[in-house]
Amino acid sequence: MARLAEVADLGRTAMLLAWDQEVCMPRGAAAEHGELRATVDRLTHERFVDDRVGELLEAASPRDEIEADVVRAARREYDKARRVPADLVAEITRAAANARAAWLEATEANAFAPFAPFLERNVELSRRLSACFPEAEHPYDPLLDDFEPGMRTADARAALERLRDGLVPLVAGVPPSDDSSLDLPADEPLPEAGQRALVRTALEALGVDDDHWRLDEAAHPFSSGITSGDIRITTRYHEHDLESLFSTLHEFGHGLYEHQIDPALARTPLGHGASAAWHESQSRLWENMVGRSPGFWRWCMPHAQAALPGYFAQLTWQEVQRSVNAVRRTLIRVSADEVTYGLHVIVRFELELALIEGELEVADLPAAWNDRMRSYLGVEVPDDRQGVLQDVHWSEGLFGYFPTYAIGNVIAGQLWARIGDELPDLDERFAAGDFSALREWLGEHVHRHGRRLMPDELLERVVGGPLDPGPYLAYLERKLQASAQLMA
Amino acid sequence: MARLAEVADLGRTAMLLAWDQEVCMPRGAAAEHGELRATVDRLTHERFVDDRVGELLEAASPRDEIEADVVRAARREYDKARRVPADLVAEITRAAANARAAWLEATEANAFAPFAPFLERNVELSRRLSACFPEAEHPYDPLLDDFEPGMRTADARAALERLRDGLVPLVAGVPPSDDSSLDLPADEPLPEAGQRALVRTALEALGVDDDHWRLDEAAHPFSSGITSGDIRITTRYHEHDLESLFSTLHEFGHGLYEHQIDPALARTPLGHGASAAWHESQSRLWENMVGRSPGFWRWCMPHAQAALPGYFAQLTWQEVQRSVNAVRRTLIRVSADEVTYGLHVIVRFELELALIEGELEVADLPAAWNDRMRSYLGVEVPDDRQGVLQDVHWSEGLFGYFPTYAIGNVIAGQLWARIGDELPDLDERFAAGDFSALREWLGEHVHRHGRRLMPDELLERVVGGPLDPGPYLAYLERKLQASAQLMA
Repeated sequence: MARLAEVADLGRTAMLLAWDQEVCMPRGAAAEHGELRATVDRLTHERFVDDRVGELLEAASPRDEIEADVVRAARREYDKARRVPADLVAEITRAAANARAAWLEATEANAFAPFAPFLERNVELSRRLSACFPEAEHPYDPLLDDFEPGMRTADARAALERLRDGLVPLVAGVPPSDDSSLDLPADEPLPEAGQRALVRTALEALGVDDDHWRLDEAAHPFSSGITSGDIRITTRYHEHDLESLFSTLHEFGHGLYEHQIDPALARTPLGHGASAAWHESQSRLWENMVGRSPGFWRWCMPHAQAALPGYFAQLTWQEVQRSVNAVRRTLIRVSADEVTYGLHVIVRFELELALIEGELEVADLPAAWNDRMRSYLGVEVPDDRQGVLQDVHWSEGLFGYFPTYAIGNVIAGQLWARIGDELPDLDERFAAGDFSALREWLGEHVHRHGRRLMPDELLERVVGGPLDPGPYLAYLERKLQASAQLMA
Repeated sequence: MARLAEVADLGRTAMLLAWDQEVCMPRGAAAEHGELRATVDRLTHERFVDDRVGELLEAASPRDEIEADVVRAARREYDKARRVPADLVAEITRAAANARAAWLEATEANAFAPFAPFLERNVELSRRLSACFPEAEHPYDPLLDDFEPGMRTADARAALERLRDGLVPLVAGVPPSDDSSLDLPADEPLPEAGQRALVRTALEALGVDDDHWRLDEAAHPFSSGITSGDIRITTRYHEHDLESLFSTLHEFGHGLYEHQIDPALARTPLGHGASAAWHESQSRLWENMVGRSPGFWRWCMPHAQAALPGYFAQLTWQEVQRSVNAVRRTLIRVSADEVTYGLHVIVRFELELALIEGELEVADLPAAWNDRMRSYLGVEVPDDRQGVLQDVHWSEGLFGYFPTYAIGNVIAGQLWARIGDELPDLDERFAAGDFSALREWLGEHVHRHGRRLMPDELLERVVGGPLDPGPYLAYLERKLQASAQLMA
């Protein structure tokens, strides 16, 4: 337990270094900080894959159920980590650094070709990583497993095919949107001070206090649960949209998960959220299911009007709520609406799967991207910057991560249906500014467990079944119907 | 070199954790952060005192002069660290944590007695630590050596006796001060926004840029050179004094030292300032020799008047400069003026030396404190809170640190005399807002060397002689004469 506590502390320290780099570090110190992070990351890895840890895990006789779960989880991670040669890990890290630099240049030049050889190298190294696990059913399995422990590619593919087949007609059925039909004052700026005040008010209502949370600004919003008592979220302020509020709600969802984990799991491998998709289910639930609900806007509207009168004074909460749920067929994932978002992700999942399978050549990737965007979303991609080059993930060698975004939404849909059964008056509670029942429900049923259960076990326990896109699709359909009625 | 780089990176990481704890951490996360810091500190120590480091140092064949200096410094530190049993280190840490808590309570209760047994324990453990070095000439030597490598107690005592014997008559000769005689608007508040603007202006003039520096607020101002390219200083804002400016200048001096160290020494044991006293020489030089000089105030006055018109508009720079150099016989070290400060420190040095020698019992400490304050400063100590309990150091088991404050001033005095010879027009430069000549002189003669030279070697190289309080005393005498003339 002491060895694992050390590894956990080092991991937390690495997280703090990463947070500091984005939020505090003077920008001229990036290279020097890179050395600090590399050393802490390397030591974290070394101290964990050490022979002695294996001996201790082998000989472990847990004193209670938590220790039994710790040993089980640690053995799983240890066996996986020991299978990958240190040389390969170092090569992957180096290649990713080079590819990321090449991606930045290629994006600036708006040209995929110069990036292609670097991406090929990342794909090749990921395939070599995968080959360290010859027993895997599918070469993508070991990559996906890093983010969704235990999930097989076949499961992810089945779920996301059903999601895709539900979303494509849903999106196709939405009439071409027209911003001017939304009744929002498009030219009216949202002063930063007012946005800050609104974000503060929302966080206070959600139960955030200065004893355990902080909010900062970052170019790409993220959240860090340094410890369960030290939750740091970030947002950004744009003069012409409400992203600051929604990104805060999103990061709050991540942060609340880490905050409500059982303190008894601190300094163990179980003291984090269950998986990437489970984490995303929490962020998306607060951003979308809560933040775009009628109840939320009934509560929020007077605060929005007080903080940003120029923008909100002439609007009703119904107009705002309809507007923040508008569906728009656009090119960029990170600014996509709730309904089209899943299709953006599925495009990426299908393409990276084909790359890892060797069914798709990197050279053919841009054309394949553009084809899928046309057939799933009905949009034409004008250039690579607004197409295949828009996300950083592949340049960093991150394969297996994208599907967790969509699976997170699927899980959120299943949770939301379950929560609706158990807390039927939730929308009324939101309207009264009361978010505590939802917060507590999530703490009790999801958060406190940390990683004690495997992701699929947790899902079974909470919703009584396996991964199922049905509830999420039904939720989106209901929303679209309500919106169409409002428009009519 | 790789092993030492790792240890250096861990040390830097620990420094960042400490900075974060004071500046960023949500206050409810202190205990969890304590675990992170303890783990990083322990690993830093373990990785350094490892047998393998000893073998590598034994077998090292340096490829250049820097590597030769690295090996020499690392061997010295390694031999010292290996002599202290890990159990004793752990006991010292534990006792210090307990004593610090007891000190906080005792301070609140304004009573020394309940703190006495904890202080006794700290003294006893420091004596045991000292006993790990039986060859030491004096039991205080190994403690002092942690902060002033190579300095013997006899040297420190000789220098500080001379300083004391010079300061006591100097202070006694100052007429009883009368705040109202200083022509400053004592009741006029200094709004925080104006103080912030003034501090910013001063830092820009000193050469601070956002690429490598940041300024934050902290309850007890400090500075952290996380890396030479990431210098973080802190200050605090009081409505009724200019501490924000002087503490910023002080921390700038520390920060500039770390910032100007030769980048080739990064990630080695040589990449820090030469010693605690050398560091203090830099902070005190910028705070006092620069920040209380006529030239500085000729330059600063229009900026001060623009930032804080209510306070400064009716004053001349001469009035302000006289006021910031006023001598006041007071009880508290941290707010003492430049002339009496040394005596506050010498009281502590003499008492802790007697404790370690076994010549003074902890029970007799308050009376001994009060006696010395009377005989050196001519003040009566009304209670322990304003007396023996005012500083945290002893509660943390820090013996050997106090003298470095006064030795730092002595070194600053020697440097200032030397700089005056080489840059005779410095005061005129300050008046023109030009601080670059001084900054560069210090970079060239002091900063860039880091820890390549032992503290006494560095002093010999820069001023051509050993530690000598003469120049510092002469500097203070000149100031008092100038001030007396202005008053006349």
